[in-house]
Amino acid sequence: MTEQQILRILQDFKSGQLAPDEALDRLRGLPFEDLGFANVDHHRTLRVGFPEVVLGSGKTADQVARIVEAMNRHDHNILVTRATTEHFVRVKELVPAAEFHEAARAIVVRKDDRILGKGKVLVITAGTSDMPVAEEAVVTLNVMGNHVDSLYDVGVAGLHRLLDRRDRLNAARVVIVVAGMEGALPSVVGGLVSAPVIAVPTSVGYGASFGGVAALLGMLNSCASNVTVVNIDNGYGAAVVASLINRQ
Amino acid sequence: MTEQQILRILQDFKSGQLAPDEALDRLRGLPFEDLGFANVDHHRTLRVGFPEVVLGSGKTADQVARIVEAMNRHDHNILVTRATTEHFVRVKELVPAAEFHEAARAIVVRKDDRILGKGKVLVITAGTSDMPVAEEAVVTLNVMGNHVDSLYDVGVAGLHRLLDRRDRLNAARVVIVVAGMEGALPSVVGGLVSAPVIAVPTSVGYGASFGGVAALLGMLNSCASNVTVVNIDNGYGAAVVASLINRQ
Amino acid sequence: MTEQQILRILQDFKSGQLAPDEALDRLRGLPFEDLGFANVDHHRTLRVGFPEVVLGSGKTADQVARIVEAMNRHDHNILVTRATTEHFVRVKELVPAAEFHEAARAIVVRKDDRILGKGKVLVITAGTSDMPVAEEAVVTLNVMGNHVDSLYDVGVAGLHRLLDRRDRLNAARVVIVVAGMEGALPSVVGGLVSAPVIAVPTSVGYGASFGGVAALLGMLNSCASNVTVVNIDNGYGAAVVASLINRQ
Amino acid sequence: MTEQQILRILQDFKSGQLAPDEALDRLRGLPFEDLGFANVDHHRTLRVGFPEVVLGSGKTADQVARIVEAMNRHDHNILVTRATTEHFVRVKELVPAAEFHEAARAIVVRKDDRILGKGKVLVITAGTSDMPVAEEAVVTLNVMGNHVDSLYDVGVAGLHRLLDRRDRLNAARVVIVVAGMEGALPSVVGGLVSAPVIAVPTSVGYGASFGGVAALLGMLNSCASNVTVVNIDNGYGAAVVASLINRQ
Amino acid sequence: MTEQQILRILQDFKSGQLAPDEALDRLRGLPFEDLGFANVDHHRTLRVGFPEVVLGSGKTADQVARIVEAMNRHDHNILVTRATTEHFVRVKELVPAAEFHEAARAIVVRKDDRILGKGKVLVITAGTSDMPVAEEAVVTLNVMGNHVDSLYDVGVAGLHRLLDRRDRLNAARVVIVVAGMEGALPSVVGGLVSAPVIAVPTSVGYGASFGGVAALLGMLNSCASNVTVVNIDNGYGAAVVASLINRQ
Amino acid sequence: MTEQQILRILQDFKSGQLAPDEALDRLRGLPFEDLGFANVDHHRTLRVGFPEVVLGSGKTADQVARIVEAMNRHDHNILVTRATTEHFVRVKELVPAAEFHEAARAIVVRKDDRILGKGKVLVITAGTSDMPVAEEAVVTLNVMGNHVDSLYDVGVAGLHRLLDRRDRLNAARVVIVVAGMEGALPSVVGGLVSAPVIAVPTSVGYGASFGGVAALLGMLNSCASNVTVVNIDNGYGAAVVASLINRQ
Amino acid sequence: MTEQQILRILQDFKSGQLAPDEALDRLRGLPFEDLGFANVDHHRTLRVGFPEVVLGSGKTADQVARIVEAMNRHDHNILVTRATTEHFVRVKELVPAAEFHEAARAIVVRKDDRILGKGKVLVITAGTSDMPVAEEAVVTLNVMGNHVDSLYDVGVAGLHRLLDRRDRLNAARVVIVVAGMEGALPSVVGGLVSAPVIAVPTSVGYGASFGGVAALLGMLNSCASNVTVVNIDNGYGAAVVASLINRQ
Amino acid sequence: MTEQQILRILQDFKSGQLAPDEALDRLRGLPFEDLGFANVDHHRTLRVGFPEVVLGSGKTADQVARIVEAMNRHDHNILVTRATTEHFVRVKELVPAAEFHEAARAIVVRKDDRILGKGKVLVITAGTSDMPVAEEAVVTLNVMGNHVDSLYDVGVAGLHRLLDRRDRLNAARVVIVVAGMEGALPSVVGGLVSAPVIAVPTSVGYGASFGGVAALLGMLNSCASNVTVVNIDNGYGAAVVASLINRQ
Repeated sequence: MTEQQILRILQDFKSGQLAPDEALDRLRGLPFEDLGFANVDHHRTLRVGFPEVVLGSGKTADQVARIVEAMNRHDHNILVTRATTEHFVRVKELVPAAEFHEAARAIVVRKDDRILGKGKVLVITAGTSDMPVAEEAVVTLNVMGNHVDSLYDVGVAGLHRLLDRRDRLNAARVVIVVAGMEGALPSVVGGLVSAPVIAVPTSVGYGASFGGVAALLGMLNSCASNVTVVNIDNGYGAAVVASLINRQ
Repeated sequence: MTEQQILRILQDFKSGQLAPDEALDRLRGLPFEDLGFANVDHHRTLRVGFPEVVLGSGKTADQVARIVEAMNRHDHNILVTRATTEHFVRVKELVPAAEFHEAARAIVVRKDDRILGKGKVLVITAGTSDMPVAEEAVVTLNVMGNHVDSLYDVGVAGLHRLLDRRDRLNAARVVIVVAGMEGALPSVVGGLVSAPVIAVPTSVGYGASFGGVAALLGMLNSCASNVTVVNIDNGYGAAVVASLINRQ
Repeated sequence: MTEQQILRILQDFKSGQLAPDEALDRLRGLPFEDLGFANVDHHRTLRVGFPEVVLGSGKTADQVARIVEAMNRHDHNILVTRATTEHFVRVKELVPAAEFHEAARAIVVRKDDRILGKGKVLVITAGTSDMPVAEEAVVTLNVMGNHVDSLYDVGVAGLHRLLDRRDRLNAARVVIVVAGMEGALPSVVGGLVSAPVIAVPTSVGYGASFGGVAALLGMLNSCASNVTVVNIDNGYGAAVVASLINRQ
Repeated sequence: MTEQQILRILQDFKSGQLAPDEALDRLRGLPFEDLGFANVDHHRTLRVGFPEVVLGSGKTADQVARIVEAMNRHDHNILVTRATTEHFVRVKELVPAAEFHEAARAIVVRKDDRILGKGKVLVITAGTSDMPVAEEAVVTLNVMGNHVDSLYDVGVAGLHRLLDRRDRLNAARVVIVVAGMEGALPSVVGGLVSAPVIAVPTSVGYGASFGGVAALLGMLNSCASNVTVVNIDNGYGAAVVASLINRQ
Repeated sequence: MTEQQILRILQDFKSGQLAPDEALDRLRGLPFEDLGFANVDHHRTLRVGFPEVVLGSGKTADQVARIVEAMNRHDHNILVTRATTEHFVRVKELVPAAEFHEAARAIVVRKDDRILGKGKVLVITAGTSDMPVAEEAVVTLNVMGNHVDSLYDVGVAGLHRLLDRRDRLNAARVVIVVAGMEGALPSVVGGLVSAPVIAVPTSVGYGASFGGVAALLGMLNSCASNVTVVNIDNGYGAAVVASLINRQ
Repeated sequence: MTEQQILRILQDFKSGQLAPDEALDRLRGLPFEDLGFANVDHHRTLRVGFPEVVLGSGKTADQVARIVEAMNRHDHNILVTRATTEHFVRVKELVPAAEFHEAARAIVVRKDDRILGKGKVLVITAGTSDMPVAEEAVVTLNVMGNHVDSLYDVGVAGLHRLLDRRDRLNAARVVIVVAGMEGALPSVVGGLVSAPVIAVPTSVGYGASFGGVAALLGMLNSCASNVTVVNIDNGYGAAVVASLINRQ
Repeated sequence: MTEQQILRILQDFKSGQLAPDEALDRLRGLPFEDLGFANVDHHRTLRVGFPEVVLGSGKTADQVARIVEAMNRHDHNILVTRATTEHFVRVKELVPAAEFHEAARAIVVRKDDRILGKGKVLVITAGTSDMPVAEEAVVTLNVMGNHVDSLYDVGVAGLHRLLDRRDRLNAARVVIVVAGMEGALPSVVGGLVSAPVIAVPTSVGYGASFGGVAALLGMLNSCASNVTVVNIDNGYGAAVVASLINRQ
Repeated sequence: MTEQQILRILQDFKSGQLAPDEALDRLRGLPFEDLGFANVDHHRTLRVGFPEVVLGSGKTADQVARIVEAMNRHDHNILVTRATTEHFVRVKELVPAAEFHEAARAIVVRKDDRILGKGKVLVITAGTSDMPVAEEAVVTLNVMGNHVDSLYDVGVAGLHRLLDRRDRLNAARVVIVVAGMEGALPSVVGGLVSAPVIAVPTSVGYGASFGGVAALLGMLNSCASNVTVVNIDNGYGAAVVASLINRQ
C-alpha cells in the first residue's frame, strides 16, 4: 500500500464517501497478503513507518524469494536480514534489482532514496570483530533514509581513540554502540554525549562472554542513564529505533 | 554550574577572551565537586541535558542528604531515586523544599516547571503490581519537563482493554511499557504504534519469572522492531531516554 | 496386543472365567516385547489411549526399523518422531507402507483412519520459522484421529492478522500455540479463547532467546490462566495432550 | 455481566435490534470497569468461562478489597489467590460473605454451588510440604464447580503408596500432580493413567532444587507424553486448565 | 616403579627390615613416570586399587598411544575412555593386544581376568539412547573384575517394565542407573532396592533438558536417600565407585 | 513393622501357610500408615535397611510430632532432619525420649545402639563453617549404627593439615568430605585414599559461590574417579549411602 | 609453632646443624595448632608472607574470639574479615587491643607498623555504594604494611572525574578497582595505567546485575589485558595479592 | 613509536622546545594509526609496557596481515593470538620473519630478545589436555622477555606429582596455573607458594563442566588468598599480568 493509496482513503473519508470507522479500519486493521506460510504486511509502512522487513534465518530460499516478490509490487524499499548467499541467488531470480551486502548479511531492493532522518546517526564498534553487526545497522539505516557516520575499533582500553573523535560523537542525533566482550563502551559513550544511546551487545568474545551474555548484562546495568539495549547481535533492531528517533 | 555561568563562558569565547579549546574544556571537561565519598557532577546538565540524579539505594541517609545539599546551591530540579523514608527525613532537614513521592520511592526538589518535551510520553503497565516502577518513570518524566499520560492494568490476556484506548496510544511521541511475568505487552504495543517503545521489565511474578528475568528475555526477543529495553525495575532509566527523545 | 485380544479378556471376565483382579492385571500390568535394546510396549494403546510412538533421535536406523517392524504386527497407527532420511530408508525396507513427512520430521504407518476427537484442534504459529514444530503437531494429531485447522505467521507484533481470524479461534476445542522468540502469542490467544491452550516454545530466535528458553519462560509466566506448557520444540507432546482432551 | 444480560444481547440480535457486529462487539470487546489502578473484567466469564480472579500478591489490602467489591455486584463466585490475612481483613469489611482458606492462601466469595465439571479431578502431591500448592488447586477447583479427590504424600521413592491407589488414579478425568525436589511423580503418574496430567512444580526442596527449577525441568522433560506443565507453585493455573478440560 | 620394586618393599617388610609404617609410606607416597606431557602413575593401582586409566578426549592419538605403551610394561589391565577410532588405530600399532569397544568408546588391554567384586553390579537405562553411557560403565566394570547384569529401556513412564524385573534389582550389590531427560529413574529404583544407587545423568534429550542438566538436577534432588550422583555422561566414574563398593 | 513381625511372616511362609507371592507381597509391597497429610512407611526398614526418616523443613511442628508419634510405636531409631526448636518442643511433648542435636539440626529417638557397620566412616570438612552439615552426617551415621571419626578445617590451601593425618584417612572404609567455596577437597582426598568418597557441597561461601553451586560443580567434575556427589548441604543423604556401603 | 621454635631452627641452620633443605622443610611443611573446630596456622606467615586471617562469617562469636586469642600469643598483626559487632564484642573481651573498622567490617589487632611494600597501592571505586568493599581492601593493605591511596566515585559515565586524576593513577604500583553494576571501570583504568590491575566486582546494583554477576562477567571479559579478577565483594583477596606484588 | 622517539620527545621537553602539556599529550594521548577497520596503537608500548597484540579470532586473514604489516614498521615484538593457519599464511607473505607456534595458536615476529623480567614465571597444568592454553601463556611470556619454567599434568588427584617438585614451585616469582574440570589446582598451589598465583580456567571437561564454568567458579571461590583469575582459556592475559609483576 503506497502513500497515494492511503491518501485516497483519507480523501474519500473527508468527502463523506467513507465513514470514520471504515476509514480507520482500512488504514489500521489491514491489509496483509496471505502466502500460506507467511502473512506479508504491506501496511506496516503506515503503522510503524517502514516497509515490512524479512528475517531470512529459519526460512528457505524459496520462502524468502516469494515474500520479496510479493512485496516488490509496491513502492517502498525492501530489506532481508540474516540473509545467506542461497537466499540471495533465489531472490535475484525473481527480483533482479536485489543487491547483496555480504558483510551485513543483508539483501536490499532500493526504490526510494529520500533522506527522512533529521540528523546523523553514528554507529560505533568496540572492536574490528563487531563489524558485521554494525554493518547490518548501517545498511538498515541507509535503507530507512538516514545520514550515517561510523567509528570502528574504539574500545575502552584505548580511550584516546574515542576521546580524539569527540566532535563526531557530539554531532550525532542518535548513537548506536556495538560491543562484545565486557560491553563497556556504551557506558563510556553515554557519559560523553547528550543524545540517546542504543547499545547492541555482540556475541564476540570467548569463555565467560557466553555468546554475548556478558556484554548484554554490562549494557543493561549501565551507569549511564541515556542507554537502552536491544538483543544480542541485533544491529537491525537498533537501526529501526534510531531511525524512528531521527525522524521526530 | 548554572546556565548563566555557561552563557558567560560562551560570550567570553565569542568576544575572543577565551580560545576555542579553553571554552570547550571549561564546558565539557569539568567541573565536579568532591565530597570525599562522592563526586557531585553539576555539569551533567550540559552534557546529558539533565541535573545529576542521586541513586538512594546503597547510600546512608546522611550521604544522600549531603549530596542533595550540595546540588541545592544550583537552579535545576533534583531527583533522588530508590529513596527510603529514612533518606527523606534527613534530606528534609537540610533541604526543606524536598518532597517525597512514596509510590515512586522518589525525593524531588522542584525548581523549574518548564515543559521541555515536544509531545506526550505515555506510560503503560500490564498489571496493578507494576505500578511502583511506572510511578518512578512518571515522577522522573515530570521532573524532566514532559507531558505524561498513563494507562495501567492493560495486560495482553485481556486485549480489549488495550485496543479500546488506541487513540491514546497513537497520541504518544514515546511509549514506556512496564510489565512483569511474561513481559509480552511491549511486543503488542510495539505492533500498534509507530513511536519508539521503551520496555521496562519488572520483578513482578513468581516461580519461573526469576525476579524479572522472564520479562527481560521476552522484551529483548520482541518480534516488534521498535522496542528497546532497560534494566529490570528501571523506571528511571526509561524516563530519561524518553525525555531525550521527546525533546528532539 | 490387539483389541481382539483385549476384548477376549474382557469377555472371559464377564463370563466369570477371570476374576476382576486377574482381568485388571492382564490388561494394565503387561505386556511388552523385549528387543534387547528396547521394550516395545504394545499395550500402551490401552493405558494412554494411543499406540507406542518411537523417538527417532538417538537411535540408529536399524534400531528404529526393528522397533517399527515389531509394532507393525498389530493394528494401530505407528509414528516415528524426530526421524531422519536415514531412519526412513531403513524403515521403508522392513515396512513398505511407511510414509515420510519431511517438514514434520515424522515417519507414519497409517492403518486406522477413524476420527476419534469430538471437535477441531487448531494449531497456530507466531512465525514462518516455527512451522517444523507445528507440522510435527499436525501429523501427530492426524495420526491420532483429530480434525485439524492451522493458522501460521500470526505473531503479536501484527495483531490484526490474529484478530481477523477470531471465528477460527473460537471454533477450536483445543488450541496449540507454537512460538519462539519472546513466546508472547499463547498469552494473547489465551485471552481470546475459552478453550485450553497448549503452548509450545520453539528454539527459533537468536542471542538472548537462548535456544527457546526466553519463549519457554514467557509461556510459563503467562498471565492467561488457560495456558499449559510443554518442552521446547515438543510439537508431538502438545498434540498428544490435545488429542486426549479432544476425545473427552 | 450476568448470563441474563448476555442472553438479552443475543435475543436483541436475533430479533434484528442489534446488527451482528454490534452484538459481537458487546459480547467480546467489552466491558471492563476502570478503577484507575485496575481494569475489572466482568466479561471474562464469557470469554474463558470463569469469573475474574484477583492475584493478591503485589496489591495492597485496599486495592484487593475494592476490586472484590466491584466484582461483588455480579452473580459469580470470586477468588483471591496469594491472599494474606491483611488482604482478608480488609475484604471482609467490604464483602462480609468472604471466607479465608488459610492453607490455600485464598479468599473465596461463594455464590454459585453448581457442579459444572463432568468428571472428577484428582490432586496428588509427592510430599507433605507440597500441600499449600495442592490446596490452592483444590479451592480453585471447588470454586469452579468440580468434584475433587486428593492423594497426598505418595512420592516415587515409595512407589507402593501410589500403586495401591490405582483405582482412584483411573477414576479421574484429569489429574493434577504437585511435586517439588526432583519432580518425578508426574512422569510415573503419566505412565499409569490415560487422562491428561497437569504437572505443578513446587519450590519445595533445598540446594540444587533452586526454588523449584529442578522440578520444573524434570516435568518439562517428562518421558510421559500426556503431561503438560504450569509455573512453579501455580496451583491456581493448573486448576483452571483442569476445570476447562473437565467441562468439555 | 615396577612391580618388582613393589615386591622388594613388601619382602623387606616381611623380613622385618622395614617397619609397617615405613613400608606403607614407600608404597603410598610415590612414584610416577614423567613423559613430558603426562605423568603416568603406575602406582595408582595400589593407592586406589585400580590401573591408571587414560581419558582419551583432548589428547592426540600419539599422546594416548605413548601413554598406553608406557603402561603396557606392567601387568594390570589398561582402559582408555572417550576413545576415537584414530586413538585406537595408533594404540593398536604400539600395543597389538588392544581391543576397541565401539559402543562404549573404550580401548581395553586385558591382562587380568580375575573376578574381584563380591557380588553383581546391575546397570539400568531409562531409554535406548542412554546405551553408550551404560556401555562405558559395563566395559569399565568388566575391566575391573566385576560380574555385571544390565536392564535397558525401562524408564518410569512404563513402570511395569521395571516392576517385572524386581528379582534382578534385588540381586544386585550395587545399582548404576543411567538416564537422560527428566532423570527420574534413580529415585524410583532407589525406593525399590536396599543397595546403594549410583545415578548417571546423560545428555540425552532436547530443549529444556539442557544437555543433561535437567537429569542431573533431578538426581541431585532425589527423594530416595540411597542415591549419589556423578557427572553427566560419566559412565566410567560410576563404574569405578561401584567397583570399590563391590570389592568391600 | 518390627523384625518380629517380619520373622513371623517368613515362618508362615516356610510352614506353607503363606504362598511365596503372598509373603513377598506382605514384605515388599506394604504397609504404610495413612495420617491424612503423610504416609508413614514403617516398612522402609526392610526395603532400604533403615527406619523412615522425617524431613522437618516444610512441615508444621504438629505434623512432625504426629509422624514421630506414629513411628514411635515400633522399635527402630527415629531421626528428624532439618528440625527447628519449635519442632523439638512439640515432639518432646508426645515422645519424651526425643533428644535435640542443635548443631546438626536433628531430633533423635534412640532405641537401638547396635553397631551394624563393618568399618569406620570418616567425616572431613574443609572449613569451620561447614560443620553444621558435617554434624548432620555424624548424627545420622550414629543413629544408623556406624563407628565415626571426624577431621574438621583441613581445606586444601593448607595441605599439611591433611597430609599429617594420612593414617586416619587410610583407616576409613568410607569417607564423607564436606566442603563449600571451591569444593576442591574431595578431589584431593579422593587421590589419597582407596575408599569410596562421598562429596557434600555446602552453601558456605559468598559471591560467585552461588549458594553452593560452585562447590557442587567442582565435585561433579572431580578428576578423582572414586568420588560421587549428593545435593548441596545434604549431610543426611551422604550418611545414608555411607552406612549402606559400610554394612556390606 | 612459636616464633621461638622457628628461630631455633634458623639458628641450627646457621650453625650448620641443619642442612638448607632440612631447614626449609621444617619451616615449610608444618605446623598448626588444633582447636578442635579450627586449625590455626601460625606458620602461614612464613609460607605466604602474612599472618593467618580469620573469615568471620559462618563462625560464632566465641569461635572467632578463641581463634584470635590463640593467634594473639605471637607477634604479627591479626585481621578478622566479615566481622560483626557481636564478633567484635567477644574478641575485645579476650584481646583488649582489638579495634573494629565498621565500614570495612574488619577487626584488627595491630602489632607491627612496618611498611613492607615498595610502592603505593591505589584503591578506586566506581560509586559511593562500592565503598564497604573498598574499605575492606584498604584495611587489609594497611595491616599488611602498604602505602595506600584511594579515589572513590569515579565511574565511567563521568570520565572526566577519572581523567583529571591521571597523575595519581600513574603513581600507583598496583591498582585495585572496585565496581558493581556493569563493572566497566577496570577496563578503562587498565587502558590508562601500566601497572597490574586487580578487579573486584561488587554486589552493588539491581535487576539484571544478579548480585554482582554482571560486574564479574564484565571484568573477566575485559579488553584490557593487564586485568585479573577476584570473587564478588572480595576486597580482602584483592588486597592480599596487591600486597604480594607490592613487596616484590 | 620506538623508545628512541620517546626519548627525543623527553629531551625536547627538557630543552624547552616542548611545553609540559605538549610533551604529555604526545606521549600519552596518541598516536594510533587508522586502518579503517582497526586502530593500531603503536603507543601501547609506553602505556602498558608491551607491543600491541592482535587477537586473531573474528578477523579475516587479510585484516590480521595488514595490521601486522603496519606494526612491523617499528622495533618491538609482535604477537598474534588465536591465530589459524590461514592467518599465518597471509601474514607470512607480508612479513616473512613471522613464525607460527601451532600448539599455542600464536604468530610471533621476534625483534627483541632481551630478558626484562626479574625472576622466573612458572606455568603449571592440571592435565595434558590443558596444554594449548598453557602454551599460549608460554609463548606470550617469551615474547615479553621472561624466563619460563613449566610443569604439566600435575592435577590434584595425584598430589605426589606436585609435592615432589616443590623446589620448582618455590623458585618462581609468579605462578600461572592452568586447569579445567573442577579447577582445584590453583587453590592447592596457592597454599604451597608465597608468590602471586594467576589462575586460568580452561574449557577442558564435559557435562557439568559447562565449557570451563565449573573451573572458573572453583578458582573465583578459592580458599587460597593469593589467587586471582582471568577468563576461560585466556593464557595470553595471564602471561601479560605475570610479565608486569615479574618486571617490578
